[in-house]
Amino acid sequence: MMRVTVWNENRHEQTNATVKDIYPNGIHGTIAQFLSSEEVEVHTATLDEKEHGLTEEVLSETDVLIWWGHLAHHEVKDEIVAKVKKRVLEGMGLLVLHSGHFSKIFKSLMGTTCDLKWREADERERLWVVDPSHPIVDGIGEYIELEKEEMYGEHFDIPAPDQLIFMSWFEGGEVFRSGCTYQRGSGKIFYFRPGHETYPTYHQSDIQKVIKNAVQWLKPVNRNTPIYGNSKPLETITQKE
Amino acid sequence: MMRVTVWNENRHEQTNATVKDIYPNGIHGTIAQFLSSEEVEVHTATLDEKEHGLTEEVLSETDVLIWWGHLAHHEVKDEIVAKVKKRVLEGMGLLVLHSGHFSKIFKSLMGTTCDLKWREADERERLWVVDPSHPIVDGIGEYIELEKEEMYGEHFDIPAPDQLIFMSWFEGGEVFRSGCTYQRGSGKIFYFRPGHETYPTYHQSDIQKVIKNAVQWLKPVNRNTPIYGNSKPLETITQKE
Amino acid sequence: MMRVTVWNENRHEQTNATVKDIYPNGIHGTIAQFLSSEEVEVHTATLDEKEHGLTEEVLSETDVLIWWGHLAHHEVKDEIVAKVKKRVLEGMGLLVLHSGHFSKIFKSLMGTTCDLKWREADERERLWVVDPSHPIVDGIGEYIELEKEEMYGEHFDIPAPDQLIFMSWFEGGEVFRSGCTYQRGSGKIFYFRPGHETYPTYHQSDIQKVIKNAVQWLKPVNRNTPIYGNSKPLETITQKE
Amino acid sequence: MMRVTVWNENRHEQTNATVKDIYPNGIHGTIAQFLSSEEVEVHTATLDEKEHGLTEEVLSETDVLIWWGHLAHHEVKDEIVAKVKKRVLEGMGLLVLHSGHFSKIFKSLMGTTCDLKWREADERERLWVVDPSHPIVDGIGEYIELEKEEMYGEHFDIPAPDQLIFMSWFEGGEVFRSGCTYQRGSGKIFYFRPGHETYPTYHQSDIQKVIKNAVQWLKPVNRNTPIYGNSKPLETITQKE
Repeated sequence: MMRVTVWNENRHEQTNATVKDIYPNGIHGTIAQFLSSEEVEVHTATLDEKEHGLTEEVLSETDVLIWWGHLAHHEVKDEIVAKVKKRVLEGMGLLVLHSGHFSKIFKSLMGTTCDLKWREADERERLWVVDPSHPIVDGIGEYIELEKEEMYGEHFDIPAPDQLIFMSWFEGGEVFRSGCTYQRGSGKIFYFRPGHETYPTYHQSDIQKVIKNAVQWLKPVNRNTPIYGNSKPLETITQKE
Repeated sequence: MMRVTVWNENRHEQTNATVKDIYPNGIHGTIAQFLSSEEVEVHTATLDEKEHGLTEEVLSETDVLIWWGHLAHHEVKDEIVAKVKKRVLEGMGLLVLHSGHFSKIFKSLMGTTCDLKWREADERERLWVVDPSHPIVDGIGEYIELEKEEMYGEHFDIPAPDQLIFMSWFEGGEVFRSGCTYQRGSGKIFYFRPGHETYPTYHQSDIQKVIKNAVQWLKPVNRNTPIYGNSKPLETITQKE
Repeated sequence: MMRVTVWNENRHEQTNATVKDIYPNGIHGTIAQFLSSEEVEVHTATLDEKEHGLTEEVLSETDVLIWWGHLAHHEVKDEIVAKVKKRVLEGMGLLVLHSGHFSKIFKSLMGTTCDLKWREADERERLWVVDPSHPIVDGIGEYIELEKEEMYGEHFDIPAPDQLIFMSWFEGGEVFRSGCTYQRGSGKIFYFRPGHETYPTYHQSDIQKVIKNAVQWLKPVNRNTPIYGNSKPLETITQKE
Repeated sequence: MMRVTVWNENRHEQTNATVKDIYPNGIHGTIAQFLSSEEVEVHTATLDEKEHGLTEEVLSETDVLIWWGHLAHHEVKDEIVAKVKKRVLEGMGLLVLHSGHFSKIFKSLMGTTCDLKWREADERERLWVVDPSHPIVDGIGEYIELEKEEMYGEHFDIPAPDQLIFMSWFEGGEVFRSGCTYQRGSGKIFYFRPGHETYPTYHQSDIQKVIKNAVQWLKPVNRNTPIYGNSKPLETITQKE
């Protein structure tokens, strides 16, 4: 049984009628619903809950954390970010969605600004699969087409991904590395671009399939955390002059 | 249900009493035995069978192919190698063991000589885990120790692996990239160093665990092969002067 | 002093008036001209010369080989390909241009089909820089725009590049990994997409700048080829029971 | 003309007679001396200088910064670290030496703990070249041997390097990724393991050669910083319903 926590800022949903209309239970609610299954137990957590809903207990019982944030990244407390980061390095999977590229947790794990070009212009996006061998594209065709999305364009200021899985084409003339995996410590990270709040992106079946696949791929590995620090030799060391 | 085919040259077992003693059913027999389970159906194939046991039918029904070869690489027919390669590019997983580094199939997929340093001196090997996030090291400690093994040393003439999972230490002073993953077409490849025929390496539980994990990681992705060739535009192209 | 050999199939130039008009001295002639400088000595070689102009002597005196081929890949002799490959693995840089993706030498070094989608439709291409730290983009802006080019689209069946430097946007809706580096043996490889024969692409200053930068980046490293084969221990190996 | 700044904590040199004896002008002094040439202008900076010697002016005039620190990482002011990081992302090269693995600047750029195993036992280290194509190993043999060094062992908690160049063998039984490159923003980073303060490592000619090569490889690329933020379309976007 996988245990997933879907974290959402959950602010647009309170103030923007369009967003509320598309996601009446919040973006987190929609994601939680399509992810839940006999093998995946899903909880949600939001910014305005105590400790943003990410207590030690919640984190210690989370195998994969999904993160959606946008306008309130700065309100996320540094101490919570530190706890999440510690858990990722210990093995918890992290799926960062869309505007989460600017979240404290993603920037801290990447070591770069994570900046990019953007535009809201109801334009077409096409996410092309560039790694057909990756389990994250199981059941996905040559590309995923989104009729209207926000544009994110290169240069995307991230470290070169360990694996590049999707590359986006935008109607306005830009491209973007839209599906990127990273390994950090004992944990795995997947950044997935789509999901502007004013479009019904997370209701699209291909997008849901990618997120479901990603959750499986992000599953923690079952082994002890490496031992660091001063270490006795495993072999005899010759005395030298 | 995963379908695994274990291919073995199966020559040392016929002529060398030590090898026969360690692997009375052949290296392939030992690997087949520990891999078989309710979820994994295992067949074996050997060099001296018709078409080396790798007919179109066998290959088309194989999800993951395991390859052990050593002194008869040149006897493997080019047409069979071509068929195996086609299947890997279409998605079949390939696990190349030890001296398989010099097999036609591995060299053809790597594009390099795959040459290395080697020595048979009953020396100690220690395979250190350098990627603790990878499912191939599930259940594995900080390192795997093998009391006696053949040495393989750098420079190992392979492309830089997509993921480097194990690095070996050898008593005689060398190091080696011992666990390497590659993506080629729709298929995944794992090279795993240990397994000289005169040592009981494939009887060791950690080695078996890595091979079991690798088979799961090598599982083909379920999607159509990409379409290549001349392609109609998906968007209107402006006529230019 | 760098020694560059520009190899060209040089067939379109003989039969197609448009191509002849754009490249009166052949594609190789144009490239040789803009590359030549006080620091770079350039020679050319073409398919119809003896040994395709790539004798042992020429190859042994070449630091970087540039390759443009298209309709006569199959006419390139296997023995010459083998010699070129040997030299790349020994350290000679290789710059593969455009339709060279299907050359024997590139496919052999990649280990994959190197297949792709394509279309000739006079459409716009925009090559976005995704690795701003790489010396190959020295002096290059955010993107290079080509008013008319042949389209190459994903999936491009290559191994994941060691470094991805350019990603192309095409008017018709596709994307492509257009600037890819690889390490093979002691040699470095750069694949650069643009340059369909019926467009004046190699006359464009940004394209020339990239090729000049690439030649510098491809410079061989000055060191002995690694030693392979049976190897004496560097440390004392304990006798074991 | 390259402009290099060698930064050193410079504390061991004040208090430890052994270190003072090996590096009478400080580790920074030794490095500055062998690096200086007609093409490379070298300055030094140390922790106890004002702003640690890393003023805006110094940083803006530095092409490559070399970093050696150990026991006083915590004394380096966060505001200086932020300035250094900004400069790296803008293109300044960064060479992190030995115990600099735990510096604030390295940890911040890596996004991981950068923790490792260590031991001081006067043991032999052998750094094997695993990427013979890289300019950093120009003029270097198959390995560099250091008669006595501190041991650093895996797991080294870093992101998978973009390029792995050296792997160390240690007498006591461990291995280590000793030469690692990274790209961050417009800047390049090289981590190079050797250089414990109580050994004359930086006096060894091979080590000096690697550092000289690395400085050249770390050279900033000459181009404008990418433009981020809201961006007008480059193509016409169709109005959709």
